[in-house]
Amino acid sequence: MKKEEVFIFGHKNPDTDSICASLVSERLDKKNGWDCTVAKRLGKVNKETQYVLDYLHLEAPEMIDKVEEGQEVCLVDHNEFNQSIEGIEKAKILSVTDHHRIANFETSEPLYYTAKPYGCTCTILFEEYKRLGHEINKEEAILMASAIISDTLLLKSPTTTEHDKKALAELEKIAGMDIQEYGLNMLKAGTDLGDFSEAELVNLDAKNLDKDGNKFVIAQVNTVSIEDVLKRQKDLESAINSEIEKKGLQLFVFAITDILNSNSEIIALGNRTDAVEKAFDVKLENNRAFLPGVVSRKKQLLPDIDKNM
Amino acid sequence: MKKEEVFIFGHKNPDTDSICASLVSERLDKKNGWDCTVAKRLGKVNKETQYVLDYLHLEAPEMIDKVEEGQEVCLVDHNEFNQSIEGIEKAKILSVTDHHRIANFETSEPLYYTAKPYGCTCTILFEEYKRLGHEINKEEAILMASAIISDTLLLKSPTTTEHDKKALAELEKIAGMDIQEYGLNMLKAGTDLGDFSEAELVNLDAKNLDKDGNKFVIAQVNTVSIEDVLKRQKDLESAINSEIEKKGLQLFVFAITDILNSNSEIIALGNRTDAVEKAFDVKLENNRAFLPGVVSRKKQLLPDIDKNM
Repeated sequence: MKKEEVFIFGHKNPDTDSICASLVSERLDKKNGWDCTVAKRLGKVNKETQYVLDYLHLEAPEMIDKVEEGQEVCLVDHNEFNQSIEGIEKAKILSVTDHHRIANFETSEPLYYTAKPYGCTCTILFEEYKRLGHEINKEEAILMASAIISDTLLLKSPTTTEHDKKALAELEKIAGMDIQEYGLNMLKAGTDLGDFSEAELVNLDAKNLDKDGNKFVIAQVNTVSIEDVLKRQKDLESAINSEIEKKGLQLFVFAITDILNSNSEIIALGNRTDAVEKAFDVKLENNRAFLPGVVSRKKQLLPDIDKNM
Repeated sequence: MKKEEVFIFGHKNPDTDSICASLVSERLDKKNGWDCTVAKRLGKVNKETQYVLDYLHLEAPEMIDKVEEGQEVCLVDHNEFNQSIEGIEKAKILSVTDHHRIANFETSEPLYYTAKPYGCTCTILFEEYKRLGHEINKEEAILMASAIISDTLLLKSPTTTEHDKKALAELEKIAGMDIQEYGLNMLKAGTDLGDFSEAELVNLDAKNLDKDGNKFVIAQVNTVSIEDVLKRQKDLESAINSEIEKKGLQLFVFAITDILNSNSEIIALGNRTDAVEKAFDVKLENNRAFLPGVVSRKKQLLPDIDKNM
């Protein structure tokens, strides 16, 4: 691990925005004459992201699982330390580019921090390219477009902003491709859950959260058939209960999101499932509840659950 | 208190950057077509800032001491809740523009956050004007220049960056004035401490800090004669000990900064003065230590003391 390198990475259990934003940031830094930044990742590439990398014939960034004290790092697509790499508390954070709430984060020195309440980190990076007057090439356009499609479910998620729509429209032109067709194929690739064990499924896109010392997790998988995933409910619950035990969680919410119809079914376990019932004014039956119109963890799941924890 | 208004304010015990950045942000928002933001302040205007306001024939922003739940606010020149207004935890923070470390801060929703490791918040605002293509008028130029002069002690503080220098040079041209002469008069106005009681002096520019539940304060006054201030040491210590008792502090550091020669004498009291001795490798004598070349709380006092708390 060379000390002079600055690592750029997204959150644990990386999604398409985390991987694409780190790759795009590396490219953007180079355009700004800053050659020492290198994209990294904090976990396995999911199938949706693999679709993007295969499409572009790109290698995934190198995987790392901890950083040494004093390592210089740039965070994209997250800020909370419990979603970041082991050792982050003692790293030197030079910059953060993110579109999430700010929590469980602190530094001892001033830094660059750019957050905007957009649907996707790559939309913020898109605006940085524009601001700095850098041309966006086709590969960069497809990386950023893929992240926006992923985070906004093809602009259908309520997290979508006008900024994301504008960015995707312009990126589509540069990419010169039918973004609807490409995007649906990409999203569908991510819903192929057959290969994953239940233990892998509940960790695939899981966010570790902390409210005043109460630890909880909100995990999410995308699917084109909620019913198919629910066939594995019993084994999923065993996997979830292992996580609860292992991490000392108060609550584990597993959201199964239908990307075609924009609804979610959740499975909630732990001794604080009351927070979920209060948050959505539902009664869990068989540990489950159907949440019509809910697709966004950030906008629709997290704030209300967090408030009731 | 109208609900539709969005309050913009700097930190408690406002300094020139906090007041000027809130006034400039209000003007910048208006230029961007956002009419609902109103500058406020969280405390008494100090003499240095009063010099700026008098020079421009401007009223100080209205003083407020708490916000209601759900009040929309924009923070400038700070982020830590213990340096902000009463009720900030339940306010809706729309944006932060700041040049400090990030700590003791969290939101439940995404927001705009713009931090840069510059010497002054107004340098960041200056770059926003440029980025958005807005012209800077003479009044705005003097407000921003005053904040930069104050925070960087006329570009002599080690917190000064190339960005601050470039901004001040350009603002000087727009203001059409001799910035050295104006700046020195402004800084000197701030060193007139004669009117203040010792209790006022130790609170004039005091930052409340928190390291894992250990509360401490670093306060600072500027002077052209450290000796003059030290004549009041006994009464200053009584005032500091009252603060320690009242706020349950582990440590109170009072820095008396010589703005002409760029040195500080500190008075440290509390049961964790060892943190100061370790931080600067000094032995306190008569509760005091001389720190040659130290003028910046943010860059030279806070990080090392914080590390040893």
